[in-house]
Amino acid sequence: MPLNNTNIVSGAQTKFGALKGISLREMFAEAVDKATADAGIPKEDIQAAFIGTFIPEMLVHQGHTAPLLLDFAGLKGIPATRHEAACASGATALRAGIMAIESGLYDTVLVAGAEKMTSVSTNKVTEALAAAADDDFESAVGLTFPGVFGMAAVAHMDKYGTTEEDMARVAVKAHKNGAKNPLAQFQKEITLEKAMTPRYIAWPLKLFDCSPISDGAAALVLTSNEKAKEYTDLPVKIVGTGQASASMNLCDRDQLASFEASVKASRAAYEMAGLSPKDMDFAVVHDCFTIAEIIASEDIGFFEPGTGAKAVEDGITAMDGDKPINPMGGLKAVGHPVGATGVKQAVVIYRELIGDAGANQIPKHDVGLMHNFGGTGATCVVNIMRRSDA
Amino acid sequence: MPLNNTNIVSGAQTKFGALKGISLREMFAEAVDKATADAGIPKEDIQAAFIGTFIPEMLVHQGHTAPLLLDFAGLKGIPATRHEAACASGATALRAGIMAIESGLYDTVLVAGAEKMTSVSTNKVTEALAAAADDDFESAVGLTFPGVFGMAAVAHMDKYGTTEEDMARVAVKAHKNGAKNPLAQFQKEITLEKAMTPRYIAWPLKLFDCSPISDGAAALVLTSNEKAKEYTDLPVKIVGTGQASASMNLCDRDQLASFEASVKASRAAYEMAGLSPKDMDFAVVHDCFTIAEIIASEDIGFFEPGTGAKAVEDGITAMDGDKPINPMGGLKAVGHPVGATGVKQAVVIYRELIGDAGANQIPKHDVGLMHNFGGTGATCVVNIMRRSDA
Repeated sequence: MPLNNTNIVSGAQTKFGALKGISLREMFAEAVDKATADAGIPKEDIQAAFIGTFIPEMLVHQGHTAPLLLDFAGLKGIPATRHEAACASGATALRAGIMAIESGLYDTVLVAGAEKMTSVSTNKVTEALAAAADDDFESAVGLTFPGVFGMAAVAHMDKYGTTEEDMARVAVKAHKNGAKNPLAQFQKEITLEKAMTPRYIAWPLKLFDCSPISDGAAALVLTSNEKAKEYTDLPVKIVGTGQASASMNLCDRDQLASFEASVKASRAAYEMAGLSPKDMDFAVVHDCFTIAEIIASEDIGFFEPGTGAKAVEDGITAMDGDKPINPMGGLKAVGHPVGATGVKQAVVIYRELIGDAGANQIPKHDVGLMHNFGGTGATCVVNIMRRSDA
Repeated sequence: MPLNNTNIVSGAQTKFGALKGISLREMFAEAVDKATADAGIPKEDIQAAFIGTFIPEMLVHQGHTAPLLLDFAGLKGIPATRHEAACASGATALRAGIMAIESGLYDTVLVAGAEKMTSVSTNKVTEALAAAADDDFESAVGLTFPGVFGMAAVAHMDKYGTTEEDMARVAVKAHKNGAKNPLAQFQKEITLEKAMTPRYIAWPLKLFDCSPISDGAAALVLTSNEKAKEYTDLPVKIVGTGQASASMNLCDRDQLASFEASVKASRAAYEMAGLSPKDMDFAVVHDCFTIAEIIASEDIGFFEPGTGAKAVEDGITAMDGDKPINPMGGLKAVGHPVGATGVKQAVVIYRELIGDAGANQIPKHDVGLMHNFGGTGATCVVNIMRRSDA
């Protein structure tokens, strides 16, 4: 049965990038202000908050982030909880917000995410990110995230003949879309030749196959059907949600050319929404690495396994293609402040659906899917959203 | 309107203590096994999991704990999210479980919490715990948690004339109850004279005013009314839940002799349940320090402000008193593995309510209240539970 009471009535993000001189709490407050007061939603209407942060403990020595951030954003007092699932932290906060509305406990809630990553060294960030994999069995022996997705790339290349050039094309598309997006970390197109620059990070992944280290925050306001009318004539309905887990360690997986949590979460979301991949106008998927976008586009059922790379080459996933993917630039070009990412993905869907995506607006935008992925793929959340008049 | 569809049908904890040679995932699996398979609830029935851990990133270099722990506990695949609110992490996971059931998205869910704290030095634990306070403004200048609650004690002493002996009596009661509890870290009674041993940790708090550093895990199974009958003839209903926040930093508080988040959260829970303090048979409150129990007993409305210490002295909060508080020993005697604590509190309420508390069974046990408190009191969760036949 489709969800029938959860509406997005506002969504905003800060600029993503290396935001020198802006702290975690300041970025968070900026995103909240944009999504509430600036959007005509009084902060007094927010009854509870669900917040995604991945690892502020190691990046800025701060736990218990929910009440801290909320206070600084002018929302002190209301229930506020932090949700963490590595790179899927933002989407798990969103799911908590959905359940809060659907349960009837709250009418109007804030869902927000933030991460401050550039205040420590790259080595420290790499160490922090490694905590998202199985520390006892894999991270501790040296497996970092470029290594994990390098292995996924090798598996996909081996099974389907995917090439380094196929992956580079994902980067070219991401930068093309990001170049139009004033909130993106990289607002510059790159050529296929540049994307193929052989500066390997973890073979076969090169520099341009990797999303960057970023600061940023994003926020959404969710509300019930009854309240939605007070805020906008054009709410976006969340009609399906799915979440699934897989083993943390890769050694327990059947394969690396597909992520089982993505397959399960998307099937659960489609089933709840009563929709199928062909009903989706576009998707925002978790392209932490270029190969991750290719695999995700197959796992969510947009393309048959092994055909995701061809879809990119044929322009099907471009902004003007039949199935645009990451039309505003994805993690690759917009940046990946980990806790913010899942919320930002929902903001992108919201803006595209209501026709507010500016130069990144895609032509057909009634129904969209977001796919947010944590760690080695041990968590995946998929949400399906439809414009209320569609 | 009282909650009307959330039932606890099972609850269990591991022994708490310095559990040498047992890892985070092993403790977690033990608690889950006890609350599911050992209680006659097939693991296959669990549809989603909500997990409280505070700071495994700094204690065991492990983030993304939900899928990791779930996999090891034999529950791989289902949606699993980690919830963090410092020492209230467990109770925020429980609230997420409540909303999951009340939303109708799931029928049967696991709520669990765990923390492994004794694998690093005490200094490292102190540093990790300090991340639960405001790092930019207070922790970084040296305010640790004994300091925070030392200040609360001074405020309460100043305002109400509370004495060090008053606080010591809370420790004596905790150890008396804990001595009967085979799962407690400290199973030994202490005299008032011993509790008054002048080994100050942060004046006026002495060693016996402080809860210990602990390892441990706890788990609950929640289910809908319809499913509850399949598992037990005597489910416990969660009839009210409240959560509130306050400023993280103490400098923004009006006072330290009461915690506003506790007052707000308990009033919200009473209102939802349609009950008042006089309807409560007993409470499990967050006694991270002895003064915290005295203040909590006032904040939840059991006693007028300033009279909590007298209630202890008069035996009102003893196991055989009119309003037993922490009848199994509290954080002080049972231990405080941070992420597990809020879940363990609910396990204690569940066991007392169904008459399964062994030597710690209190005589009147129809309705109980749990109070779980995070950090400097920036988060508080209060839940009210009633035995289904009461």
